[in-house]
Amino acid sequence: MRKKVSESVINRLPRYYRYLTELDSGKVERISSRELSRRMHVTASQIRQDLNCFGGFGQQGYGYNVRFLKESIEKILGLDRGYRAILVGAGNMGKTFAINTKFESRGFKLIGIFDSDPKKFGTMIGTHKVLPYSRIREFITEHKPQMAILAIPKTVMHEVANQLISYGIRAFMNFSYTELSTPDNIAVENVHLGDSLMRLSYKLTEKQNNENPHKND
Amino acid sequence: MRKKVSESVINRLPRYYRYLTELDSGKVERISSRELSRRMHVTASQIRQDLNCFGGFGQQGYGYNVRFLKESIEKILGLDRGYRAILVGAGNMGKTFAINTKFESRGFKLIGIFDSDPKKFGTMIGTHKVLPYSRIREFITEHKPQMAILAIPKTVMHEVANQLISYGIRAFMNFSYTELSTPDNIAVENVHLGDSLMRLSYKLTEKQNNENPHKND
Repeated sequence: MRKKVSESVINRLPRYYRYLTELDSGKVERISSRELSRRMHVTASQIRQDLNCFGGFGQQGYGYNVRFLKESIEKILGLDRGYRAILVGAGNMGKTFAINTKFESRGFKLIGIFDSDPKKFGTMIGTHKVLPYSRIREFITEHKPQMAILAIPKTVMHEVANQLISYGIRAFMNFSYTELSTPDNIAVENVHLGDSLMRLSYKLTEKQNNENPHKND
Repeated sequence: MRKKVSESVINRLPRYYRYLTELDSGKVERISSRELSRRMHVTASQIRQDLNCFGGFGQQGYGYNVRFLKESIEKILGLDRGYRAILVGAGNMGKTFAINTKFESRGFKLIGIFDSDPKKFGTMIGTHKVLPYSRIREFITEHKPQMAILAIPKTVMHEVANQLISYGIRAFMNFSYTELSTPDNIAVENVHLGDSLMRLSYKLTEKQNNENPHKND
C-alpha cells in the first residue's frame, strides 16, 4: 500500500497526463523537468516532489522519458484498467458530459445512459440510446460497470446512489451540486461548477488587490 | 498585499463557503472547529491552518461565529463585489452552466449570452436572449462585465479570449478542454471535466489496491 498522496498532487496528475499525451503524440521522446515545468506552470522542484510520491521517474541531467512517464501516470491513475461507466440522467448536463468527454482516449468505456423520463427513452446521445432507469439493475448485473456518473437532481441523488451501490457500483462522479456522502469503500468525485466560478472570483479579486493594494485597506 | 495562498486552500474556500451558507440559512450561529471538520471531511487543524492564511477567525474554546466567518470568506472570495459575467457559446455546455449555476446566490450577475450561430440568436436560455457575437464589443463597452465564461470550441478559444481582453474582460472561466494561456494580469479558471473523471479513476484504483494489496505487486 502506498502512503497517502495529497489532494493537490492528485489534482495535478491528470494535467501531467494530458501534457505528456500531447508530447507523446507529437513524437517528443524526452523532456527536461525545466521544460515540463515551463509548460505546466509548476516549479521543477514541485514536479520532482510530485513524481517522488510514486517512486520518481527522472534521471539527473537526462530528463524524463515522455512515453515511460506517461504510461506510469496512466497506471497510477488506473487508466489502464478499462473501467466501464454508466451515465444516469440524460438532461443538459449529462448530455454535455457524454458528448464532450473523450472517454475512450482516457481509457474509459461509457457503456450505457439511463433516465427515468419516458420521453427520453430511445433518444440518441452520441452513439448511445437512452435506456429506462427501471432496467438499470439488470444492466449493471450483466455488464458490471464500476462507475456511475450522476447528472440528476440533488433531491434523488442519495437514493439513486444507494441503489446503485447495492447493485455493485463502486465509484461516482456527482454533478448534483451537493456533496454526495457514501461509505468509505466507495470513490466519489463531486463536481461543483459553482466552485470554479468562486475560485475565478478569488483570483480576479487577488489581481485587483495587487493592482490597487490600498483600495480595500 | 497578502502572502500567496496555496491552491489547495483556494480549492477549499468555496466548500467552506457553501457549508457556512447552509448553516447560516439553518439559523446555526456557532460551530466548533471539530464539528465543522466533521462536516467538511477535513481535519480541525487543517481548517485552523486554512483560516490562518487570512488572519484567523476562531476563538479558543468558543468556536466560529457562522455568519461572521461566512461573510469573511465571502469577502476573501470577492463574492461581495457583484462581478458581472457574460457567457460566450450557447451550446450544450454553455446552456447547462447558465441554467444550473446559481449566479445570483453566489454574488454574480450573468448579464449577457452570446453565440456566433444565427440559428441561436433570439432563443432564450433561462431569462436571457442569446445575442449575436458581433455585438459583444459594444455590449462590453456599455455594461462593463469583468468575467467571461467561454463554452466554445478550443480552435477559436485563444482568438476569442484575446479579443475579449482587448475589450476589457479581466477573468475567464474556460470550458474548452484545453488550457487557456493569458497575460499575467488576467485571471483564468480552466474547467476540465475529463480531469474529474481521471481523479475518480485514481480514487477507485486506490480503493481497489487497498482491498487487494498484492493483486498488482
